[in-house]
Amino acid sequence: MLLNPKGFAVIGASSEKEKVGHIVFKNLLESKVKAYPVNPNTSKVLRQKCYGSVIELKNKVSHAVIAVPAKIVPQVVEECGAAGVKTVIVISAGFSEVGNNKLEEEVKEIVNNHDMRLLGPNVLGVIVPGVFNASFFEGEIKSGGVSFISQSGALGVGVLDSLVNSEWGLRSFISIGNAADINITDALKESLSDKKTSCVIVYAESLQKGKAFMEACSESDKPVFILKAGTSSAGKRAASTHTGSLAGSDEIYSAAFNQCGARRVGSLKSLINAGMIYDQQGFLGEKALIITNAGGPGILVTDALEKAGIKVPKLPSKLVKLLNKKLRGVAWSGNNPVDVVGDARADRYLKVFKAVSKYSFYDEVIVLLTPQAMTEPLKTAKGLVRFNKRVKKPLIACFIGGPSIKEAVSFLEEKGVMVFQELSDLTSVFRFLV
Amino acid sequence: MLLNPKGFAVIGASSEKEKVGHIVFKNLLESKVKAYPVNPNTSKVLRQKCYGSVIELKNKVSHAVIAVPAKIVPQVVEECGAAGVKTVIVISAGFSEVGNNKLEEEVKEIVNNHDMRLLGPNVLGVIVPGVFNASFFEGEIKSGGVSFISQSGALGVGVLDSLVNSEWGLRSFISIGNAADINITDALKESLSDKKTSCVIVYAESLQKGKAFMEACSESDKPVFILKAGTSSAGKRAASTHTGSLAGSDEIYSAAFNQCGARRVGSLKSLINAGMIYDQQGFLGEKALIITNAGGPGILVTDALEKAGIKVPKLPSKLVKLLNKKLRGVAWSGNNPVDVVGDARADRYLKVFKAVSKYSFYDEVIVLLTPQAMTEPLKTAKGLVRFNKRVKKPLIACFIGGPSIKEAVSFLEEKGVMVFQELSDLTSVFRFLV
Repeated sequence: MLLNPKGFAVIGASSEKEKVGHIVFKNLLESKVKAYPVNPNTSKVLRQKCYGSVIELKNKVSHAVIAVPAKIVPQVVEECGAAGVKTVIVISAGFSEVGNNKLEEEVKEIVNNHDMRLLGPNVLGVIVPGVFNASFFEGEIKSGGVSFISQSGALGVGVLDSLVNSEWGLRSFISIGNAADINITDALKESLSDKKTSCVIVYAESLQKGKAFMEACSESDKPVFILKAGTSSAGKRAASTHTGSLAGSDEIYSAAFNQCGARRVGSLKSLINAGMIYDQQGFLGEKALIITNAGGPGILVTDALEKAGIKVPKLPSKLVKLLNKKLRGVAWSGNNPVDVVGDARADRYLKVFKAVSKYSFYDEVIVLLTPQAMTEPLKTAKGLVRFNKRVKKPLIACFIGGPSIKEAVSFLEEKGVMVFQELSDLTSVFRFLV
Repeated sequence: MLLNPKGFAVIGASSEKEKVGHIVFKNLLESKVKAYPVNPNTSKVLRQKCYGSVIELKNKVSHAVIAVPAKIVPQVVEECGAAGVKTVIVISAGFSEVGNNKLEEEVKEIVNNHDMRLLGPNVLGVIVPGVFNASFFEGEIKSGGVSFISQSGALGVGVLDSLVNSEWGLRSFISIGNAADINITDALKESLSDKKTSCVIVYAESLQKGKAFMEACSESDKPVFILKAGTSSAGKRAASTHTGSLAGSDEIYSAAFNQCGARRVGSLKSLINAGMIYDQQGFLGEKALIITNAGGPGILVTDALEKAGIKVPKLPSKLVKLLNKKLRGVAWSGNNPVDVVGDARADRYLKVFKAVSKYSFYDEVIVLLTPQAMTEPLKTAKGLVRFNKRVKKPLIACFIGGPSIKEAVSFLEEKGVMVFQELSDLTSVFRFLV
């Protein structure tokens, strides 16, 4: 429907750099899926032969991205039907979101008549990083396992932009917009059945086909993390202006999500972080080992883990003995969290990594570091990369700080270690990962 | 006691660059308060004449920072007493935190005998940005109105490091450590009575003198934001290892904080953000105006505001008419949040800024932006700076994204506009600011 296109027509492709139709075609030209510009008023776009109508591309494209003025969308969609297009992605705005319901109904009817599917209108588009970018978002995102469905294109842009230059990737991004046909539930189903999707993160203002949404969540092994906006009365009013649909009672949503196993998060950041941690590390088991050079952060993480139902078990006495020997003369905590204390250089972390590697009393490891006088962030990071390979369990690091830990954090990210710079990023998501 | 020293002796000052005594003296040499190195084994430190004993500095210094091996701390503190020092800051570790309670008691007794005060042992030190840095933290922090008290020095370092290169500043930082004498409550009282402190943020694992803490909070007009760690049983166990003191029941703490008006936050990030917003913007009033180019974020902010008891009132009908005129042809939301929609260039924001300036139905403004195809982040930021000066009400901006909004965010920060890059930074703190 959306994730496996066999060729795109970009209707409204343009040579004017600022136009949405130009950006979409440029993005698709750099994609692995063939794309053809369609515009009766120009002969070439970005040196590619431009077609006067999508009908000239009959059976050559499965998908059409439409970026033309709203009033000519029906005509263009009609032509898509005649050309054998399966799915139209209508980026154009000016439909139900501005009260123009009639025009939207008209488009929907044409789509139905031709047995096509419609994403939009009023969407940012669809992106499968590394494969195609059928949207007017211009940045480049790495490929990953998280599929992101956003009812709000504008919110989607904010998230996508924050992922540019990051090692975190997405399997797909789908902007839902007015949802005249394909809605969140449809996109969710396609994402969940997509083999390369490990989990789905959803930003929703309202949910059509609520029962189908719940069924999709229940039936899938893959976790669905959802941020549901419009929890307050004023928020609902704003949501109704924004999407034209009425947001239901918040308690009903919460109960429904609980019942079907959808994981409702409380903030945009938790939505992203929970998805990314799951994709890279999977769910967290019931026992965590914490290694830190800072007592305070160790306690805050312990609190958050226990609140999420994850234990921070005492260390086996044999391991305590081993660590007492390895860390002779060090006033380490003697327990879990393993606090190697503030004056620890990298070697102390490395000794602990080595010692705990032989034990299996824990299901995941949290490694914390703050940059104190003797701390060696980069050297510690290098040891952590090796430990991460060896330990074969979920491992999440948090190097807390700014300039002093920047290089180490970049190194960890490059080497595929899940690392945060703010403790709150971790402590706020544990409960969604059990 | 801590914030207004008249000269420092740095006992244990050293020429070896890696030693804590070197770093502390270097930091103090760059401060506005006179500092003297003390070390019997060297004649000069950083080209400054080095004294053999603090006694040679009799009545020249009010404060002594001590960074010598634990076992000679008592002798050195005794000399401080003889030299007329008022306050000793003992950075040295190796006391009650490693079970060496006897040595700590000994130091405490000497301090009492000489009518001195003692910060520590086992502390990072004290910093008053722009005035002095009596700690071994090496970065430079800007001056601001927030006083930060941290029971954990290591956590303090993480926060301080994240403020380096930031426009956000602190009035003071006090590391509490083992609290043999000066504890959180003492530091809180001094901070609250300090004229340049607008509010206090506290990281606490346990609270001695709980009643005095509550009284200090009750009696002050200045807000106290507190992150209390050790809420879980394992967290309490870890806290007891870390500070040697037992953390009390979490419910009792919450009830006590409520009663005395201390604002208990749930994460390190909320602690910092709440303090910084209060310092720069004050408390939020009961009615908020939201201006956005993205519906979704507008709804999420509305939800969070309403949850905090802040209304997002409907726009006066006169203003709606005015905006309809100014934004002719734009499918704006017609209400609050004022959604200028995704294709807004800077001019549309600027028109709204101008129009709402004449109205007083709101107590604060939240300005949101995501970088969409037509968005002009920097130009919008420039207009926002002017609006910020004109509006004379709390104003908080959130430009959501990464590279596309980086320049605009830096510009806003430089010009003193309170700006975030992550929606969750805002939505998580509203409730602490009413």
